[in-house]
Amino acid sequence: MEETKKKKCVVRFEPSGLKTEVPAGTVLLEAANKAGIYLSSICGGDGYCGKCKIVIDEGQFQSKPTALLTPNEVRENVVLACQTRVLSDMTVTVPKSHTLETSQILMDSDAHRFSELAGEVEAGVFKFDPLVQKLYLEMSPPSVQDHTADHERLYLAIRERIDAPVMQTGFRILQKLSSVLQSLGYKVTVTIGRRGETTEVIEVEAGNHSDRNFAVAVDIGTTTVVAHLVDLTKATTIDTEAMYNSQINFGEDYIRRIMYAEENNAFDQLQNRIVNDVNNLIVTLATRQKIDLQDITTVICAGNTAMVHFLLNLDATRIRREPYIASAGFIPPIRAAEAGIQINKRGLLYCLPSVAAYVGGDIVAGVLTTRIYTRGGISLFADIGTNGEVVLGNRDWLVCASSSAGPAFEGSGVKNGMRAGAGAIEKLSITGDGSIEFKTIGGSPPVGICGSGLLDTLAELFTSGIIDRTGRFKANGRPGLSEGEDGLHFQLVQSGGGHQEIVITQADINNLVRSKAGVFAAIRVLMESTQTKIKDLEAVYLAGGFGNFLNVRHAVTIGMLPDVPLEKIHFVGNTSIAGAKTVLLSRKALKAAEKIAQSMTYFDLMSHPKYMDEFIRANFLPHTDLSLFPSVKLAAEK
Amino acid sequence: MEETKKKKCVVRFEPSGLKTEVPAGTVLLEAANKAGIYLSSICGGDGYCGKCKIVIDEGQFQSKPTALLTPNEVRENVVLACQTRVLSDMTVTVPKSHTLETSQILMDSDAHRFSELAGEVEAGVFKFDPLVQKLYLEMSPPSVQDHTADHERLYLAIRERIDAPVMQTGFRILQKLSSVLQSLGYKVTVTIGRRGETTEVIEVEAGNHSDRNFAVAVDIGTTTVVAHLVDLTKATTIDTEAMYNSQINFGEDYIRRIMYAEENNAFDQLQNRIVNDVNNLIVTLATRQKIDLQDITTVICAGNTAMVHFLLNLDATRIRREPYIASAGFIPPIRAAEAGIQINKRGLLYCLPSVAAYVGGDIVAGVLTTRIYTRGGISLFADIGTNGEVVLGNRDWLVCASSSAGPAFEGSGVKNGMRAGAGAIEKLSITGDGSIEFKTIGGSPPVGICGSGLLDTLAELFTSGIIDRTGRFKANGRPGLSEGEDGLHFQLVQSGGGHQEIVITQADINNLVRSKAGVFAAIRVLMESTQTKIKDLEAVYLAGGFGNFLNVRHAVTIGMLPDVPLEKIHFVGNTSIAGAKTVLLSRKALKAAEKIAQSMTYFDLMSHPKYMDEFIRANFLPHTDLSLFPSVKLAAEK
Repeated sequence: MEETKKKKCVVRFEPSGLKTEVPAGTVLLEAANKAGIYLSSICGGDGYCGKCKIVIDEGQFQSKPTALLTPNEVRENVVLACQTRVLSDMTVTVPKSHTLETSQILMDSDAHRFSELAGEVEAGVFKFDPLVQKLYLEMSPPSVQDHTADHERLYLAIRERIDAPVMQTGFRILQKLSSVLQSLGYKVTVTIGRRGETTEVIEVEAGNHSDRNFAVAVDIGTTTVVAHLVDLTKATTIDTEAMYNSQINFGEDYIRRIMYAEENNAFDQLQNRIVNDVNNLIVTLATRQKIDLQDITTVICAGNTAMVHFLLNLDATRIRREPYIASAGFIPPIRAAEAGIQINKRGLLYCLPSVAAYVGGDIVAGVLTTRIYTRGGISLFADIGTNGEVVLGNRDWLVCASSSAGPAFEGSGVKNGMRAGAGAIEKLSITGDGSIEFKTIGGSPPVGICGSGLLDTLAELFTSGIIDRTGRFKANGRPGLSEGEDGLHFQLVQSGGGHQEIVITQADINNLVRSKAGVFAAIRVLMESTQTKIKDLEAVYLAGGFGNFLNVRHAVTIGMLPDVPLEKIHFVGNTSIAGAKTVLLSRKALKAAEKIAQSMTYFDLMSHPKYMDEFIRANFLPHTDLSLFPSVKLAAEK
Repeated sequence: MEETKKKKCVVRFEPSGLKTEVPAGTVLLEAANKAGIYLSSICGGDGYCGKCKIVIDEGQFQSKPTALLTPNEVRENVVLACQTRVLSDMTVTVPKSHTLETSQILMDSDAHRFSELAGEVEAGVFKFDPLVQKLYLEMSPPSVQDHTADHERLYLAIRERIDAPVMQTGFRILQKLSSVLQSLGYKVTVTIGRRGETTEVIEVEAGNHSDRNFAVAVDIGTTTVVAHLVDLTKATTIDTEAMYNSQINFGEDYIRRIMYAEENNAFDQLQNRIVNDVNNLIVTLATRQKIDLQDITTVICAGNTAMVHFLLNLDATRIRREPYIASAGFIPPIRAAEAGIQINKRGLLYCLPSVAAYVGGDIVAGVLTTRIYTRGGISLFADIGTNGEVVLGNRDWLVCASSSAGPAFEGSGVKNGMRAGAGAIEKLSITGDGSIEFKTIGGSPPVGICGSGLLDTLAELFTSGIIDRTGRFKANGRPGLSEGEDGLHFQLVQSGGGHQEIVITQADINNLVRSKAGVFAAIRVLMESTQTKIKDLEAVYLAGGFGNFLNVRHAVTIGMLPDVPLEKIHFVGNTSIAGAKTVLLSRKALKAAEKIAQSMTYFDLMSHPKYMDEFIRANFLPHTDLSLFPSVKLAAEK
């Protein structure tokens, strides 16, 4: 043992064929990271989520015993990568269902969804006035009659075009200014960025380049990162791209990632991961659209508070600890290069302001996009992602809260759950005769079930009477219901035709119910605290990374959203990126976002006396108190 | 020759003993530079000013023939350093009268003079509100009841203390903010700097360091650089220091330095020189006062436009060429470190704004200090240095011009001229019996004559009838008057008692007359253009590096200043540094300076049709038109 520990071992990962060399004794999960393979790991490598399963094809290894593997799996050399050490050269296979596909799978859903929502600016809700602009200026050169200095001449010309009472020029720009102005007879393109009330001259180039000004808006989710490439001259979205957040093998939720980083002094590593992801998305978009990275002058990010802290390497440790605070809610614009983001080297990085440690800029973007902060009537906004954030309010007041009920609707903690991607069941129904109909994203053979499919599944199992109000499977012997390795499960799709069997287990259902209960309890706390009745709700917005075919009625049926008339419920998709784009294109929208972040009142559910009661009451389908869900009661009676 | 060119030669400079090694063939002036010896060189090494004389004690050299050396000098191995090449190891002696003493000689005069003028702030003319402040903040730490993020908590605490509507925080500060706040229980010292309307958090430190906040105000003159160390917490000047501008061997005036830099691609070198000078002054002051450089948070510079361009390496080439413009008149505050200035690494560098290529921030400082921009009556301000700038105006209008009549009153172009320093004759009178009385700075044996002494000399020679109205020596044979190597000269001090003979030559007088004529012609153009009569002048301010005993009556007698009642004339010393300090201590003063710079109308004398006429008419003592100088006429008649 002592000797083998010192030797180097080559580990080859199939089916990708990626290889890496590590010292003997290295944990297999680390080796996978090193090879660039991101295995799902909810627990951050602690060995109890069972997500990082991998098959050893060849080679020596040492694994800790675990109850998370079935006898069959152990026979087939399946191990938990986080609990296994490499002892020799080896070949391993990463099961398809356990890898995170970093292809453009999400393009079909999250990334493209509701891109028209970014049309706030074209629609005239906000004035088109982007955070970074290029102006082509034709100045008259200085003469004996007009001896204005170059720097003041530039300011005068800029102020003829735009409102810029407070201006700044970087030293390097100032140093080169005169030679640039003179090179083409005082005809220059000036790039100006807004930093709060200050207008900064960030670049000066000879000649007219004002038609080449691009930005990337990024939604940094805990699980996925979505980027839109925007032409700032035309206020249009040119292209979109998405990938999994590659921090994912440090923990599936951000609390675990913070714990991992604290224990391993790995905040730099977390930052590197997310910065690399953002850079990868930018490079992919720029390459595909043949855009020079120097012409990308702006990056704007919306994300939860923890993600923004990771991105900028701000102190995130107290997000998970009392008093649960952020290092910064309002992030001043910085040079993107300072954070390692590779666009124009003087380009700016903006982050949407957050409200609290658990209510981030993504939620502020949601409020901005849905415009609930402008209406007289009360609206409800719920974003169901890795966490479930809820906002209630109108133009006079806004309250918000976050339920940490877990990312079940993102497919996590669900045996055949997956993100909305090719092969994901996004729509499912159980017909009167008990047969199951479904639709997959892209029409591909079914691989798993995404959020909207899980919502359908839970609602259909309930309305078909396969599960009861507590979420438990009713009587055995029902077709499709059987005892599997994970306890009772219900078969949704038979294996065959090149795909595996797809089931939903009792544990899956319990997770989904807990998740929806968390969201609904949060809604109840906010409504009770503000004495808002269900009838007062003028609109309910549901945001998140569900599939394309979200059945909003099902969100009421399972008791996730309050029982309002269906026409009041709107699925609004990825409002985080939509809001980021709106802000990108209008300074007024940024001001609105800042005002939203400042004025929203945050309710800390952990310390709220009523939350736990509400959570327990919501752990039924749809709720212990059926009077809260008259439409569901009525449907059940029919 | 070919062989010797390749070898290395050691050149030793006496009396300092400084040595340097250079390749054979190197020009001796360059070797002196390399050794850190700054020889005066008005012509920038072109061989026609004759200022860089040096004695070869030992070694081989090759000199170009020159008419600037007397036969005696040639016999004594005196050479022009700029016209001499080193051919072997050699020892040379730098004559005392030709070196620039970089000691604290100026401390006695320029640096200390009128330091009470910086008292504008204490006197309540401007509110005390320094450009960079340290605030000690005791914040309550976050709690479950108060989950405000650290960054916003800091902003709130700052805004409780000061007016700061627009704020910025640097990325590095943001990253360390939380750990600094937590290290001593949210008790921190925050350093805030003002950049226009923006307030920047430039440093955050745990604990109370608010009593250690220092700044250096610098007057960057073409010939001298003067620095005052200021305690920003008490608005007091702690110490002062001055030295020669070590760019001086690239040319005595800035036009020659620009030419030199263009020809030799040496703008970097010019920047290095002045940055080193400023750093030397800062280090000297900090060391003497036992102040940590990190506690110096601000540097503020006032200087002519060219000096500020050299300091920041901005494009200065068009200062000397049509259309005679600056690269920047208004210089945004930058980090001092960006310009190479060694104070706190996040400390700020401010430069007073200039009006035009030939009217710089030093003149704006003069207008600010004399407060002529606030008065109903018309005032005149003249700054006699290497150039002669003139401002006329009141609270409604300000006009200005620059005469490039040369730095004769700074001792340049005058055989025994020198800057105000130890041994300089600063006061001189010719009594009724023709005997000469004088006073030297520090009471030292006389070494030369400084500005106030030269003014006295010219006026006394004129009123005693030794020179006529054209400035020519009258009849030969008069005691003291004799033919020397430089033509006719008048002996002011006999040699003996350890000092040399001190004379004034016809050429010296011609230079002084031209210099005063330039200033007066500029005054006349401004007065004529604004239809200002002599009787309209409520006050006349004379600024510049004269000695302590300036006789303002003499400035009228020779026709440099208009003939107003003497009580209206005020010698105000170094208003450049006084103005810089006022701005340093009050944001209101900075705004006032910016308004002055923007509102002043610049007259370009080169292209002004009347300037040359006025200049020719002023080339008499006091003037061709005696009616302009009734008091002088009256005195002459008596």
